[in-house]
Amino acid sequence: MPSATAKRPSPSRNKTKAKLAKAGVKRKAPAKSRTQGKRTKMVYFFGQTRTEGTAAQKLLLGGKGANLADMTSIGLPVPPGFTITTETCALYSAGRNRLPVGMMDEVSKNIRMLERELGKKFGSARNPLLVSVRSGAAVSMPGMMDTILNLGLNDEVVAGLATATGNPRFAYDAYRRLINMFGDVVMGVDHHRFEHVFNAIKAKYGTSEDTAVPVEGLKELCAAYQAVYREHVGKPFPQDPMKQLEAAVGAVFESWNGTRAIAYRQINGIKGLAGTAVNVQAMAYGNMGEDSGTGVAFTRDPSTGENVFYGEFLINAQGEDVVAGIRTPLPISQLEKWNAKVWKQLLQVRKKLERHYRDMQDIEFTIERGRLFMLQTRNGKRNGVAAVRTAVEMVREGLINERTALQRIPAGDLVQLLLPYYRTEDKRGIEILTRGIAASPGAATGKLAFTAAEAVERAAAGEDVLLIRKETSPEDVAGMHKAVGILTSTGGKTSHAAVVAVGWGKCCVVGAGELSIDTEAGTLTVKGRTFGRGDTLSIDGTTGEVMPGVVARTIPEAISGDFAQVMKWSTKYATMGVRANADTPADAKRAREYGAIGIGLCRTEHMFFEADRIKAVRQMILSTEVGQRESALARLLPYQRGDFIGIFTAMDGLPVTVRLLDPPLHEFVPHDEAAQQVLADEAGVPLVDVQRRVAQLHEANPMLGHRGCRLAVTYPEILVMQVRAIVEAAIECRQMRIDARPEIMIPLVGTRKELAILRTLTEQTIDLVFKERTKERGVKKFEIPIGTMIEIPRAAVTANEIAEVAEFFSFGTNDLTQMTFGFSRDDIASFMPAYLEKAIVDSDPFQSIDVDGVGALVSMACQKGRSVKPKLKLGVCGEHGGDPSSIRFFQTCGLDYVSCSPFRVPVARLAAAQAALK
Amino acid sequence: MPSATAKRPSPSRNKTKAKLAKAGVKRKAPAKSRTQGKRTKMVYFFGQTRTEGTAAQKLLLGGKGANLADMTSIGLPVPPGFTITTETCALYSAGRNRLPVGMMDEVSKNIRMLERELGKKFGSARNPLLVSVRSGAAVSMPGMMDTILNLGLNDEVVAGLATATGNPRFAYDAYRRLINMFGDVVMGVDHHRFEHVFNAIKAKYGTSEDTAVPVEGLKELCAAYQAVYREHVGKPFPQDPMKQLEAAVGAVFESWNGTRAIAYRQINGIKGLAGTAVNVQAMAYGNMGEDSGTGVAFTRDPSTGENVFYGEFLINAQGEDVVAGIRTPLPISQLEKWNAKVWKQLLQVRKKLERHYRDMQDIEFTIERGRLFMLQTRNGKRNGVAAVRTAVEMVREGLINERTALQRIPAGDLVQLLLPYYRTEDKRGIEILTRGIAASPGAATGKLAFTAAEAVERAAAGEDVLLIRKETSPEDVAGMHKAVGILTSTGGKTSHAAVVAVGWGKCCVVGAGELSIDTEAGTLTVKGRTFGRGDTLSIDGTTGEVMPGVVARTIPEAISGDFAQVMKWSTKYATMGVRANADTPADAKRAREYGAIGIGLCRTEHMFFEADRIKAVRQMILSTEVGQRESALARLLPYQRGDFIGIFTAMDGLPVTVRLLDPPLHEFVPHDEAAQQVLADEAGVPLVDVQRRVAQLHEANPMLGHRGCRLAVTYPEILVMQVRAIVEAAIECRQMRIDARPEIMIPLVGTRKELAILRTLTEQTIDLVFKERTKERGVKKFEIPIGTMIEIPRAAVTANEIAEVAEFFSFGTNDLTQMTFGFSRDDIASFMPAYLEKAIVDSDPFQSIDVDGVGALVSMACQKGRSVKPKLKLGVCGEHGGDPSSIRFFQTCGLDYVSCSPFRVPVARLAAAQAALK
Repeated sequence: MPSATAKRPSPSRNKTKAKLAKAGVKRKAPAKSRTQGKRTKMVYFFGQTRTEGTAAQKLLLGGKGANLADMTSIGLPVPPGFTITTETCALYSAGRNRLPVGMMDEVSKNIRMLERELGKKFGSARNPLLVSVRSGAAVSMPGMMDTILNLGLNDEVVAGLATATGNPRFAYDAYRRLINMFGDVVMGVDHHRFEHVFNAIKAKYGTSEDTAVPVEGLKELCAAYQAVYREHVGKPFPQDPMKQLEAAVGAVFESWNGTRAIAYRQINGIKGLAGTAVNVQAMAYGNMGEDSGTGVAFTRDPSTGENVFYGEFLINAQGEDVVAGIRTPLPISQLEKWNAKVWKQLLQVRKKLERHYRDMQDIEFTIERGRLFMLQTRNGKRNGVAAVRTAVEMVREGLINERTALQRIPAGDLVQLLLPYYRTEDKRGIEILTRGIAASPGAATGKLAFTAAEAVERAAAGEDVLLIRKETSPEDVAGMHKAVGILTSTGGKTSHAAVVAVGWGKCCVVGAGELSIDTEAGTLTVKGRTFGRGDTLSIDGTTGEVMPGVVARTIPEAISGDFAQVMKWSTKYATMGVRANADTPADAKRAREYGAIGIGLCRTEHMFFEADRIKAVRQMILSTEVGQRESALARLLPYQRGDFIGIFTAMDGLPVTVRLLDPPLHEFVPHDEAAQQVLADEAGVPLVDVQRRVAQLHEANPMLGHRGCRLAVTYPEILVMQVRAIVEAAIECRQMRIDARPEIMIPLVGTRKELAILRTLTEQTIDLVFKERTKERGVKKFEIPIGTMIEIPRAAVTANEIAEVAEFFSFGTNDLTQMTFGFSRDDIASFMPAYLEKAIVDSDPFQSIDVDGVGALVSMACQKGRSVKPKLKLGVCGEHGGDPSSIRFFQTCGLDYVSCSPFRVPVARLAAAQAALK
Repeated sequence: MPSATAKRPSPSRNKTKAKLAKAGVKRKAPAKSRTQGKRTKMVYFFGQTRTEGTAAQKLLLGGKGANLADMTSIGLPVPPGFTITTETCALYSAGRNRLPVGMMDEVSKNIRMLERELGKKFGSARNPLLVSVRSGAAVSMPGMMDTILNLGLNDEVVAGLATATGNPRFAYDAYRRLINMFGDVVMGVDHHRFEHVFNAIKAKYGTSEDTAVPVEGLKELCAAYQAVYREHVGKPFPQDPMKQLEAAVGAVFESWNGTRAIAYRQINGIKGLAGTAVNVQAMAYGNMGEDSGTGVAFTRDPSTGENVFYGEFLINAQGEDVVAGIRTPLPISQLEKWNAKVWKQLLQVRKKLERHYRDMQDIEFTIERGRLFMLQTRNGKRNGVAAVRTAVEMVREGLINERTALQRIPAGDLVQLLLPYYRTEDKRGIEILTRGIAASPGAATGKLAFTAAEAVERAAAGEDVLLIRKETSPEDVAGMHKAVGILTSTGGKTSHAAVVAVGWGKCCVVGAGELSIDTEAGTLTVKGRTFGRGDTLSIDGTTGEVMPGVVARTIPEAISGDFAQVMKWSTKYATMGVRANADTPADAKRAREYGAIGIGLCRTEHMFFEADRIKAVRQMILSTEVGQRESALARLLPYQRGDFIGIFTAMDGLPVTVRLLDPPLHEFVPHDEAAQQVLADEAGVPLVDVQRRVAQLHEANPMLGHRGCRLAVTYPEILVMQVRAIVEAAIECRQMRIDARPEIMIPLVGTRKELAILRTLTEQTIDLVFKERTKERGVKKFEIPIGTMIEIPRAAVTANEIAEVAEFFSFGTNDLTQMTFGFSRDDIASFMPAYLEKAIVDSDPFQSIDVDGVGALVSMACQKGRSVKPKLKLGVCGEHGGDPSSIRFFQTCGLDYVSCSPFRVPVARLAAAQAALK
């Protein structure tokens, strides 16, 4: 198996990149060290002999080099090698693209060390040392030279290798790959020229498969490749391994200043890096025979968090075979039977890793002829359940403290603990069609979709679909995301489907081998029964069971056990509070159960849509005079008051921020003629009047139109009715000894004066209602704070003025994002995919706040607001209030609270604690 | 005539207010002076005896008091009086609403001075001194007590006054007004109670007109008013004039802390003011008989700028009679015959005023029994022609220097010098229906509208209308604004219609007495001929002529004479350049003639609409593949290249900033089925395909949708075609020895990366074209700067990042205003009138830049941009680029240029000079 980097999804790469880019800007050391008299060390060895680099030296050794050094230094049996520093690359660039004087001497010395450590010899036919060469800057950078494997082979060595391994197919296959890669990557020979020759050989041997070409054919291929090389390079393929190495290193350095790499750095604003490092590492092969193998494992179960060694391996195989899920691997526990020594060694590695990293690790290893090599270790991905259990148990085990435990759990994954599941009772009497591997917990019921595209399309049409695949690949990701669950017939817990689904907390069952899937026909056959697109199945991601039809699911209610422990710690460490966005008593109740300390956004427009009310709303809108409008509003008043009584009661003792009417009025009027006729009849006006009014309400850009506080400015009577309803409801609650704590929030304010005028009107209305009720039993005036949403860029820019007339600000980051970017959320689908693909935005700015742009306005508004009113209460009620990375940013702004949907309250509580601990 | 303030439109009031409010915040002096041991002076006299205040003491004396002091101190015969300071008001408020100790002593002393100066006596029946009492803060403030006239009258004095003047009607009318005002304003008696009594008296004398009540009736009325007063106040109306005065002053102070005044200050953010001043001033009456009169005049002709005394007066009349245009006044020159002494005195005043203010003055005066009193002087409003002539002539006369001359001309008024006019040849053979007074120059042809509302409605429908009124009033202003010209049958050059029209530079003829107007019937009859709504008239605002039908107009081309002089000075003093927004060679040529130094915005989308091209554009949009799109674009290429050759040729040697395609694609596709069918036939696709694509392109908020650089990101081939057309055109121009200087501007950028990616693509295209043409004669590579518009809030906030990849910024303040305010320009009509009325915005932010919000972002972007690229070129190409007050702001941001429509280039040049001189 080729060493080191069988790639698996690494979603955190982007963020790391950004961090490093920032760190890189500050770097000044290399320039300084170059000016010193003594020659700077250019090569850092890693191996059992010694390890010269550390994990902290990313800027000098590149990300890959630093990681290899770290793994080696904690005693992992990593294939040894050495790293040529980024500074050396800078010298190369500065020195008109010549390898710096002395570099190859250092390289030679390091090759000697490698030889000694492995007992092999570079260029020896008998016991050859083969190496890989890879670039590796401090920031991952497409456009640079990537990898050359098997370096060190030549005509003589390959023959020796064939004899020594007794596996000539392996040897000549490795050689033809080297010539191809070296020719293509180092010398710029067009890849197609090699392919052309290979096709001819395959034709000669009557096959179209690479693997079916006999050893003789591979030998011919090596000769033919060398001919291609000579023809296009003008010189023969270098037989001297040191010359191969020298050329490869030069090519890596050269690629740092290639057009693509420069364009990439320019477009991505990557600055302050000296150059790329070069990693030279001994090859290790898992496919050298029945005493070789390869595997992947987790130090604990990543789907439950249970403290057991968990993984799979394959004998005589390359790493890709495990990850791709093509051959079904053996459970890790069976490794003991196959090679007890290696098994014992692996268990020691497991222990060492958890002690060193104090976290659950995800490892890749190769066994070359009975010798264990660790190719990679990294913190293991796990689902929410496992993250919570691992963190809490590690605190008990004394491995980490509470703070670390909190920071260990990806806050967003907590939603998985609130996932639906099947109780045993639910499944009583339900037929189990088959069982697969329980890859990602949850309970999912849906109609069958057989391709990702189909899943996307049908999900968009509102259908719940289960994605049915033999195995999945990265092209399926969009469909996997849209499906309610994923079911595959092959692959294990580390297959693509499993890894991706676990990351999302999406229900997934893999390796259900009894299924026979016909993708083209759109059928799934199991035990003689066939299911098609119209049929429904249910899958249990916790047990691996597949069931026909709909099975009733249970949605978790209470927060208990390890989860409750995490919530308790969160409250202990968080400094921001978490409120919920809720418009109904039911939502308010759930939010409270999940630990919300108030309602941060109670929208009032939803209340306008209910059956009886919408009539009055429409009559209000049709009115041409204030008087008519007021009488329609008078009919709405009791409904609104009732709504508020319900919510205040649910939130007894906690604050409820009520936002006054926000959407444009045309959202309330019917747009089809039949409904317009009904409205006309009810109002006793001609249809044409209704239609004229509807047309009048039409707007070119309703997002930027007559809505929010602009409605209250033009129709003050709407505000008056709503404020009256709030105050009367609060008074009536208090009369019933319910501690109602309303706060009134005026939306879409852009100027101080809008708020000043509406505040005055609101205060007058509050005073009036209290005056009316003052003689009733138990009515005593109480304060009702009045504040505003900051959701218009101008409001952020002039927040110091607005703060003068506001008791609180609540950032409406949805609208603020729309206006700051000039993005209509309804319309970005036509270009947002391209923006994400080209990394113009790191993530959808409606999901995670855009720190540099929208965030800068939030931060500015906080500072300006507090500059005139130091105790101004600050919160956020856009959807970002439930997004952990946004919450991290809000902490830096000094917000008092975030507000999010009830379901995300636990996420926000944990994220708030994490933010406070940063 | 009641003294001082017969009100005429004063459009600059708002700005003054804002300035003062700012100045007010800094004020600390009063607090300091109050803490001093010596009692602070509370009353400031103004009169011939002495004048204690100055124009600079607005904070202490209020705006009105400071002005009265200034006029008096330069020797104008102002009715004398005194001002009680704002600090006194502060003492009153601080001292639990008691008049400060010693204040009435100072007031008494000042009353004595007044008596001595005028030879009258306060409270005397024989020769009574009557005074007015007015509030006057440093900032004009509705909600405070306004005016009490005729104070000093009592039962005895009124009888004396009747005898002394021989005009008992005058005397008792003045008395009943005092009782009413004093009761209402000072003591809070409901105004309706007085009205009720007055109605009874009118009924008794069988009339409904105030003026028809005989003297006896007025005497009865005074008695009845006193009864009302006694009944509601509980005490009789005070007969002691000093008691009247004391109560009035207290009421003014009291009103400073009234609910309405406090709310006004809170809503408008007015802070730092100590209180209101009180102005007590002797009354002067122009209606005391045939030796009395009143008039208004300008020191030079405000419609031409000619250095002649210009005005009108009325004998035995109040000021309102002149302003309202009800009685037709006499030309000022006839005053010499009526009263040679006063005439001579007025001529001296005229001379003195121009020397003191070094500007043309607009004055109001009253002659009370042969004695001249100046009631007001202020800088005279004048039209653009007069402003230019006055300024240039005053430089020649040595009154002012060039800098002052430039600052004297309202830059926006220059458009009037580019107004259409009738040449004598144009009018040859044209019938002259009648002649009125030429009130405001210009030439206007339109259909007749008889009410303001009608004018507004028909103008909105696209009609050119002439507004026909007997006389106009402030309610007509909206209609006057929308009409192409105004024609009235009564009124003189100082009538409402004339003053308003001159201010706008709108063509206006007044006092065409031969016209008989029937507003209800909608007809105008002159010399037996009747014209209705469907008929067209033409008016000449320079001669006063009214002509039937359409008369050909001439639009001025060249800038010459005084105007050219002003432009020359402008270039000398301006530091910002002026470019034009122009999309065609014709516009470019005109811009150049008007002095533009380049094109700041050349839109490319207009070019897409022309007949043959739109087909290719639509085909491009219909394409589902890059290849199809590219071939449609290839057909557009020659057109675009030709357009650019035309514009580059017109701008030979000057820069042309070309903006790449900006609008959303749906603007180019047909929305009616017939046109869609044509398109489908042309493209050879089914209609339904076209309709599906059109539906796909529909957006909820197109302003925030798929447009600008987002098009180039998703369809890079559009950018490539446009850049190719620009570069090829420039190369071809240079081959013809035309110095083409294109600059490429990428619109709607919100992130650095958008621009980085598109910049790279643009550079690659430029390089490619040069490579292709490099062997042609005379082709040498030249630099083409690449920049961006800053029109999205996020771009302003992250301008430092964007500047790294931009050679220039051009602020698109139209879109920036839309997004910063969250205002869709197409949709604000539903609330903007309310916003202007409630002064939530000072002016339409699309006309004048919103300095505090949008301006703050512009300023931030300038600073951030230059922080990383000190020589970054900065300009503005929104419509604000032609607005003088916006230009003043842009100067403070350090912009290199502004760009506006060609017609406004002279305005912008002058405004830029003014901004530089500030």
